[in-house]
Amino acid sequence: MHLGIIANPHKNGSAATVLSLIDTLEKKGISTSLEDDTAKLIDGATGIPAPELAQQCDVVAVLGGDGTMLDAAHRIGPTDTPVAGINIGNLGFLTSCTDDELDIFADALLDLSYKVVPRILLKTTITHQDGSIEEDFAVNEITLSRGQTGRLISIDAFIDGALLNHYHADGLIVATPTGSTAYSLAAGGPLISPIASAFVVTPICPHSLTNRSLVLDDSSVVELTTAEESECPALYSIDGREVRELPRTSRIKVEKAGHKLHLIRLRDRSYFATLRQKLRWG
Amino acid sequence: MHLGIIANPHKNGSAATVLSLIDTLEKKGISTSLEDDTAKLIDGATGIPAPELAQQCDVVAVLGGDGTMLDAAHRIGPTDTPVAGINIGNLGFLTSCTDDELDIFADALLDLSYKVVPRILLKTTITHQDGSIEEDFAVNEITLSRGQTGRLISIDAFIDGALLNHYHADGLIVATPTGSTAYSLAAGGPLISPIASAFVVTPICPHSLTNRSLVLDDSSVVELTTAEESECPALYSIDGREVRELPRTSRIKVEKAGHKLHLIRLRDRSYFATLRQKLRWG
Amino acid sequence: MHLGIIANPHKNGSAATVLSLIDTLEKKGISTSLEDDTAKLIDGATGIPAPELAQQCDVVAVLGGDGTMLDAAHRIGPTDTPVAGINIGNLGFLTSCTDDELDIFADALLDLSYKVVPRILLKTTITHQDGSIEEDFAVNEITLSRGQTGRLISIDAFIDGALLNHYHADGLIVATPTGSTAYSLAAGGPLISPIASAFVVTPICPHSLTNRSLVLDDSSVVELTTAEESECPALYSIDGREVRELPRTSRIKVEKAGHKLHLIRLRDRSYFATLRQKLRWG
Amino acid sequence: MHLGIIANPHKNGSAATVLSLIDTLEKKGISTSLEDDTAKLIDGATGIPAPELAQQCDVVAVLGGDGTMLDAAHRIGPTDTPVAGINIGNLGFLTSCTDDELDIFADALLDLSYKVVPRILLKTTITHQDGSIEEDFAVNEITLSRGQTGRLISIDAFIDGALLNHYHADGLIVATPTGSTAYSLAAGGPLISPIASAFVVTPICPHSLTNRSLVLDDSSVVELTTAEESECPALYSIDGREVRELPRTSRIKVEKAGHKLHLIRLRDRSYFATLRQKLRWG
Repeated sequence: MHLGIIANPHKNGSAATVLSLIDTLEKKGISTSLEDDTAKLIDGATGIPAPELAQQCDVVAVLGGDGTMLDAAHRIGPTDTPVAGINIGNLGFLTSCTDDELDIFADALLDLSYKVVPRILLKTTITHQDGSIEEDFAVNEITLSRGQTGRLISIDAFIDGALLNHYHADGLIVATPTGSTAYSLAAGGPLISPIASAFVVTPICPHSLTNRSLVLDDSSVVELTTAEESECPALYSIDGREVRELPRTSRIKVEKAGHKLHLIRLRDRSYFATLRQKLRWG
Repeated sequence: MHLGIIANPHKNGSAATVLSLIDTLEKKGISTSLEDDTAKLIDGATGIPAPELAQQCDVVAVLGGDGTMLDAAHRIGPTDTPVAGINIGNLGFLTSCTDDELDIFADALLDLSYKVVPRILLKTTITHQDGSIEEDFAVNEITLSRGQTGRLISIDAFIDGALLNHYHADGLIVATPTGSTAYSLAAGGPLISPIASAFVVTPICPHSLTNRSLVLDDSSVVELTTAEESECPALYSIDGREVRELPRTSRIKVEKAGHKLHLIRLRDRSYFATLRQKLRWG
Repeated sequence: MHLGIIANPHKNGSAATVLSLIDTLEKKGISTSLEDDTAKLIDGATGIPAPELAQQCDVVAVLGGDGTMLDAAHRIGPTDTPVAGINIGNLGFLTSCTDDELDIFADALLDLSYKVVPRILLKTTITHQDGSIEEDFAVNEITLSRGQTGRLISIDAFIDGALLNHYHADGLIVATPTGSTAYSLAAGGPLISPIASAFVVTPICPHSLTNRSLVLDDSSVVELTTAEESECPALYSIDGREVRELPRTSRIKVEKAGHKLHLIRLRDRSYFATLRQKLRWG
Repeated sequence: MHLGIIANPHKNGSAATVLSLIDTLEKKGISTSLEDDTAKLIDGATGIPAPELAQQCDVVAVLGGDGTMLDAAHRIGPTDTPVAGINIGNLGFLTSCTDDELDIFADALLDLSYKVVPRILLKTTITHQDGSIEEDFAVNEITLSRGQTGRLISIDAFIDGALLNHYHADGLIVATPTGSTAYSLAAGGPLISPIASAFVVTPICPHSLTNRSLVLDDSSVVELTTAEESECPALYSIDGREVRELPRTSRIKVEKAGHKLHLIRLRDRSYFATLRQKLRWG
């Protein structure tokens, strides 16, 4: 068992948790490698770029919360290597355990008593007027939204080639089951079980009150364009990262990605228990 | 091509539409049979019980709105025979055309230019304390709700054996994609594409504001019981039909049914167009 | 200072809290009287009916949660005497303190360091076809709802004589600011500051998705009738108490009551702090 | 009777409607004056600045939709002169009639058979760190929102000096009853009767699902600041007009304005009828 480690370099205490994790693992005979930026946190350590790290290791551990997990997933890129989030302090939707549980985590790795839960991802393809193409993938969601103009945007949405709707709204979210507990939820969307073969289109503050979230089969292809009458251009962002302007003549296609994110779940940890705790249903 | 006909016996004008449909079809060489209760609307006609009608015919036409379709689906029972709803006046979510379009409908039957769209159904299994079992199926939804007591009910919900939540609410709905435009929508649930392999658990006026709708993969098994602390017993109903009290010691299991409802969709009719029209998105 | 005491006779520990309260108060020179049913909890004690108790005392203390407060408000009836809820265990929206704070409460009474916060109430007048009239008042809300039929009810609502809407819904709530944190909130209604001169009409699971809550000036008069096309008669209840059927020819008028509920608030207790805690905004 | 006229200079057909209105009015003996920018639409006409126009006229007519009304209200500034919106084509929430009804409108002016409905406005006072102050007023709402960063903003809200909440959200709206049918509604807020002495604080896509709209008495003073931990600065805008960045050390106070907007309502026009039509409750 060889473990790769990626830590949030901006979180206080990351270095200490990395050292503590390495120590816990080595005592149990699990070797480790560090990702590039993570290595910089540790005196004298050398690191490997994230994609190579995932290739060389049996499991990648990510130290930090859900935001760090999102970031790591993008830095690693497509991989079949399972990823385990170790949250510092709290419990997250994406993380496997907290930093209080390093021993439990190490034991689970050793006796292979964990479960690997694949999460579907979205592939986004932006086709520009000149025919050029940009591809990316989303763990949580892709968001189209208005900028600072104070105006609504108008978005034409198509499902498998058929018009779904002309939306007049602050924006539109296409979210995975994983993303259903993030921005889509705040915008009024439903929760989606992580094993559902579905994703969801959720309008943000739609002008028409009947524009509810629409859950789609994950075989569906969603295409989005800025409508001609839109009062302002749309911005788009993936997983709440970099926000960019979508030229009015460009078209975004959103569909299920070819690869998945393989999350490690420790035995006896239930997704619904996390849901109850995070949403304070208790 | 042999067509079975079921009409809403309580709707004014049903008899006239039945006669008009028979006339239109026979002119084009399509023979027809009538269901029992429908035959009573027509002087001198004889009918066949709904299940036999479906067995003997290539297609069953149902004259009436979405409510009549629900009713017909239950009277027919499990069948692979496609069903076409002919709405009198309006457009419905389940119906294929309106009674203004009998010619178009007949032509589509003749040249087989229609599409058969299977809709998933829910199977409900109630296990009582004495071990006795009641089975049924739902086209739209199964609803647990409080009665006239003015008190909340408490429901324990389990997904695949794991606790989902203790709900304190006016009730709880488990709905199919087909049912997502019915009661679940009024209770705040999302729209679900009819081809999605999913169903949805929607609480009704939950005491906890974070108890959102939860979309599940249609391989999931939901089990519901009245919680011990419930202030009143739960009532249950299927597709808004007969309302019955669920004994506190009984358990309801809800899962995907083994059969589907096969709806006829005329060429060039889009589900999303119906959605836009019915929800006035236009 | 003479204090009347009403306790929830169905709550375990009520008797002990009553004795503890009497003890705490008498040590500080505050005399007490017990309400009828409360006196039955205490060996050898005699009580006074609730309305007389309120008349004879400077303050009425109610031991129990928000439900007990609602009940006590109805048993006392119209009065200017301030009421202080002493919650057993938790914090309530209506209660002034918890049973851990009896000393603080007694001191506040003695040095008059409390605030009296008047809460508006609703007066309901039901006019039956034969001209007979029933009057009552609501602390939280009056609810019209469907019974066990599984059918929607249709309600015609008028504001100051002008048609507001024909509602097709599970029901309709007219709530005070006090009631805005109760059933109306679960049905999707807004929070209303307790000092706002307003009440709110909130539909329950309306058929039309655009039927939002409507906040009215408290000078408004709301009239509700079952619409002719209603599939079933409406039930009504006040503050979630007794549920009764409203004859189809009867009419309910809802307006601000002539009297208020005078709640005691201890110094430095903020309504918004309670809101944050109860709704877990923290 | 002397009427001032303000038209939307960007709307096709404004000039024709202005001429038609002048013609209709003069035939009935009502004289007119034009606002500056409106005069530019008409060959050879001269105009008066909006504030002077309101001062010199008995009534100001605004040709255009709700957006034009908002704009005109800001250009006129505080005034007691009643304003009548004449919508081109549709019906608006703020407008008095459509351009098909110029005769009805003129007759109503002549025989004084209209009603003047005052609408409360919000006064906003921004206090910057250097002590400088900016004042403005809002007809619909003041909005604080995040910019293009993709990050949540954190806003501390105080009511009459007491902490209401630390919001983590896309933004926060403080809306008048008039604004309750605009952006606040899209963000999930309630409808508020135009005569209610209330305004409403509505969070936009709040991180916490229990952060509902809060209706306040219009005597309340709301103060908003960007919280220290906010991931990005807040933008603010008034009535969806110019969007500006709020320095992190600045503080916005929102309270009822000293003046109102006096809208003309024609006899027999009901606010609730407009509501039903605009929200398609019919």
